Amino acid sequence: MKNAVLITIGDEILSGNTVDTNSNFIAGELKNIGIKVIQIVTISDEIETIKNTLKSAFETGDLIITTGGLGPTRDDKTKKALAEFFNDEIALDEATFNHLKNYMEKRGRLEILERNREQAFVPTKSTVFQNHFGTAPCMMMEQDGKLCFSLPGVPYEVKPLIKNQIIPYLQEKFSLNYITSRIVSVVGIPESILADMIENWELALPENLALSYLPVGTRVKLRLTATGENESFLNQQLEQEIQKLLPLIKDNVIATSEDKIEKILGEVLNEKKMTISTAESCTGGELAKLITSNSGSSQYFLGGIVTYATEKKIDILKVSKETVDEFTVVSEQVAQEMAKGCQELFETNVSLSTTGVAGPDKGEDGKEVGTVFYTIRVNDKEQTLKLFMPHLDRIDFMNFVSQKVIQDLVNILIND
Amino acid sequence: MKNAVLITIGDEILSGNTVDTNSNFIAGELKNIGIKVIQIVTISDEIETIKNTLKSAFETGDLIITTGGLGPTRDDKTKKALAEFFNDEIALDEATFNHLKNYMEKRGRLEILERNREQAFVPTKSTVFQNHFGTAPCMMMEQDGKLCFSLPGVPYEVKPLIKNQIIPYLQEKFSLNYITSRIVSVVGIPESILADMIENWELALPENLALSYLPVGTRVKLRLTATGENESFLNQQLEQEIQKLLPLIKDNVIATSEDKIEKILGEVLNEKKMTISTAESCTGGELAKLITSNSGSSQYFLGGIVTYATEKKIDILKVSKETVDEFTVVSEQVAQEMAKGCQELFETNVSLSTTGVAGPDKGEDGKEVGTVFYTIRVNDKEQTLKLFMPHLDRIDFMNFVSQKVIQDLVNILIND
Repeated sequence: MKNAVLITIGDEILSGNTVDTNSNFIAGELKNIGIKVIQIVTISDEIETIKNTLKSAFETGDLIITTGGLGPTRDDKTKKALAEFFNDEIALDEATFNHLKNYMEKRGRLEILERNREQAFVPTKSTVFQNHFGTAPCMMMEQDGKLCFSLPGVPYEVKPLIKNQIIPYLQEKFSLNYITSRIVSVVGIPESILADMIENWELALPENLALSYLPVGTRVKLRLTATGENESFLNQQLEQEIQKLLPLIKDNVIATSEDKIEKILGEVLNEKKMTISTAESCTGGELAKLITSNSGSSQYFLGGIVTYATEKKIDILKVSKETVDEFTVVSEQVAQEMAKGCQELFETNVSLSTTGVAGPDKGEDGKEVGTVFYTIRVNDKEQTLKLFMPHLDRIDFMNFVSQKVIQDLVNILIND
Repeated sequence: MKNAVLITIGDEILSGNTVDTNSNFIAGELKNIGIKVIQIVTISDEIETIKNTLKSAFETGDLIITTGGLGPTRDDKTKKALAEFFNDEIALDEATFNHLKNYMEKRGRLEILERNREQAFVPTKSTVFQNHFGTAPCMMMEQDGKLCFSLPGVPYEVKPLIKNQIIPYLQEKFSLNYITSRIVSVVGIPESILADMIENWELALPENLALSYLPVGTRVKLRLTATGENESFLNQQLEQEIQKLLPLIKDNVIATSEDKIEKILGEVLNEKKMTISTAESCTGGELAKLITSNSGSSQYFLGGIVTYATEKKIDILKVSKETVDEFTVVSEQVAQEMAKGCQELFETNVSLSTTGVAGPDKGEDGKEVGTVFYTIRVNDKEQTLKLFMPHLDRIDFMNFVSQKVIQDLVNILIND
C-alpha cells in the first residue's frame, strides 16, 4: 500500500487562528483510492523548517502533499523551499502565466496582474496543475518514483484540485490496493461495554480487516476497514463480518452503512415518506442547519424557526403565556408546546423543538448553563427529554444537542 | 520563548473521519500565555511511531502535549509507548482509581468499572491531572526541565483539562514572555492589492512585531503579533502601529480588535441598540446559527425562520405567489419579500434573507448551483445582492454565504 504524508504550512494553524480542514478532506479522498495517510504535520512558513520536513516526509512517504504557503503576499516561502530542496530554480512558466492572465481577466482584475505575476514562477522541474479557483498554481515534483504536490491553502481551491486533478492522476500513476470500509452506528451503549460485547468477534476478524471506535457525542461509530486487491471480495468480507456483528448489538444499531447522522435521518424519512420541521431556541439554528446540510433534504425538511425571544415563542409558535409563567421558558412544557406549534406551522409529520441555556451566562429564569429540554413529536405522539451538559462550551453545546436530538429521532423512527 | 509541539494520536484523523479541532484549541490557549506552537503532528496509534515522534518532539520543543489514544478500548497504545519512552512502568494509581470510581458512581455506571480499571494504570513517574469529564486521566512526565502532557482525545474532555488545569500549571511553572496580537478585518480589497497598499508600513515594523494575512472568504484578517517581556508596552506598540495602518486602508476596515464576524456584528448592533432577524432558504439555518453562536446574542437576535419549502415562504413570510411565479423562487424579488416578511414577523430593525441553490443538484426552477440572492434590510432601506459560487460544496456554500451576508451587513451599519 502507498503511504502519504500531508504537510500543512501556515502560522495561522499553529497560532490556533484557523482549523486545518484541508488535511481531513485530503485524507478522506486518498483513503477512497487506497492511499493511507501515515502522518499529518503542520509547520511554520520558514524555509529551513519546510526543507527539513520534506526530508523526513520523503523518508516515510511515497506521496507528499503540502498545502498553504503559496499566496501572493510576503509571508509565503514555500516555493523557495521547494526549489532549494529539489536543487532546482524558479522561473516564469508561460502556460501558468497565461492561465493566470485569463483567470484574472475573467474577474476584471487585470490591473493587479503585476503583483500576482510572481505566482507564475515555479520550479523548472515541476509539473503544473492549473488552479481554476485561485491564483496560486499546484506544482508536482517527482523524485525516485515518489511524488510531492504543493497546493495553496484555501479550502475551496484545494478541494477541486484534489478531486478533479490529483486523485485521477494518482489513480493512473500508481497501481493501488483497495481500501474499503463500513460504519455501524451504535447508540445507547458506552464504548467500554460495547467493547466487551463484541470482543470475541473482533479477535476473530480476518487479518486484512481492522476495527476502530469513533465516539461522536453519545453515539459510537464502529468502522471496519478492509484492505486488499479485489474490491468486490473486500465488500463481501465486510458484509459477512457485519452480519456476524449485528446480532451482538442488534437493538442499538441505528445504521450500518451511512456515517453522518443527518444522512441516516434523510434515508429513514424518505423511506417512511415523512416530512420534518424544527423549532429551536438554545440550538439557534444549528439543528435546521444540520438537517439541511444533507443534500436532498428539501425532500423532507419543510422549514424551521428559531424563536430566541420568549415573546416570539408565544406569538409565532402559540406557546401559552401561562405555561411560560408557570414553568419558565426552559421547561418540559414549553418544549412540548413549541413542538406542537411547529408541527402546525409547517404542517409536517415530525417536529423537533429545543429550549435551554447554551451559556456562558445563566438563563433569565435562573436555569443552569447546559440545561436543555427537547421534544420529538411524530404525528400525534411525543417524547420530551432533558439533557444537562454543563461542561460543553456554547458552540459545542449547540452542536451536541442537535446531534443528540436527531439521533434520538432516528432511534424512535427505526424502532417504531 | 517556550516552544510547544502538539501530537495528535489517532487513526480517525489520519483516515479523514474526524477533523482535529483539539490542536486548534490548544494552540490558541498556549498562544495566550506566550507559548508558541512550532509543530502539530498527527500520527497513528502504534507504539514505535509514538515513541519516534516523542523523540523528535523532545529535540525541538520545551513542551509536548499529546491528545488521543487513551480510551478504554483496545485500539489505544499510547500509555505503553509513554512508559517505554520514559523507561518507566505502568502501575495502578490509587488516587486515580478512586477518582474514576467516584466518577462512575455518580453516573450510575459502577458495573463497568472492571473494564475501565485499566485506565487508572499510569506510568509510575507521572503526575496525574484528574479528568472530571471522562474516564481517561491526563498524565504529565518531566525530563530535563521539559514537560510532556498526555490527554485523551475527546474535545470536551480536552478543553477543561487545558483551560482549568494545564494552563494555570504552565503559567506557574515557566516564566514566560508575553505574546499579544491584534486583528484588523479588511473587506473589499483583494489580498494582493492590500499587500501593495501597506508594504511600506509593513517593512518599517519593529523587529518584535510580525504581520500575517488570514483570508476568510472575501475578508482579509491582518494579524499583528508582538512578542516581549512587558505586556502593556506590547499593547502600546500594537496600538501605535494600528493607528499608522488605519489611514492606509480606512474605509475598508470593519473591525480593529474583534476577530470573528459574529462578534463584530454583536458589538455594532449593541452599540446601535438594534435588533435582528433572519429568513433563510439555501443557508438552511447556518445564518441564524452563526449569529447565535456569539454569546450575548439574545440581546439583539429575536428569531429566525428557515422556509425551505416554497409554500412556507408564501404562508409564513407573505411572499406573494405572483412574485414566485414571475421571477422564480431564487430571485432578487423573492429575497426582498422574504426580508420584508421576516422584519414584520419578528418586528426587528434589521432583517436578512437568503434564497439560492446550495447544490449538488440544480434548483427546481433550473437556477445554477451556487447562485444566491440575499437581502439586507435595515429599517426601511434594503439592498439585495447576488453571489455565484459554483465551486463551493454544499456545506462550504452555506457557510460562505452566511459569513458574507453578515460581513456586508456590518459594512453597511458601520458606514451608515
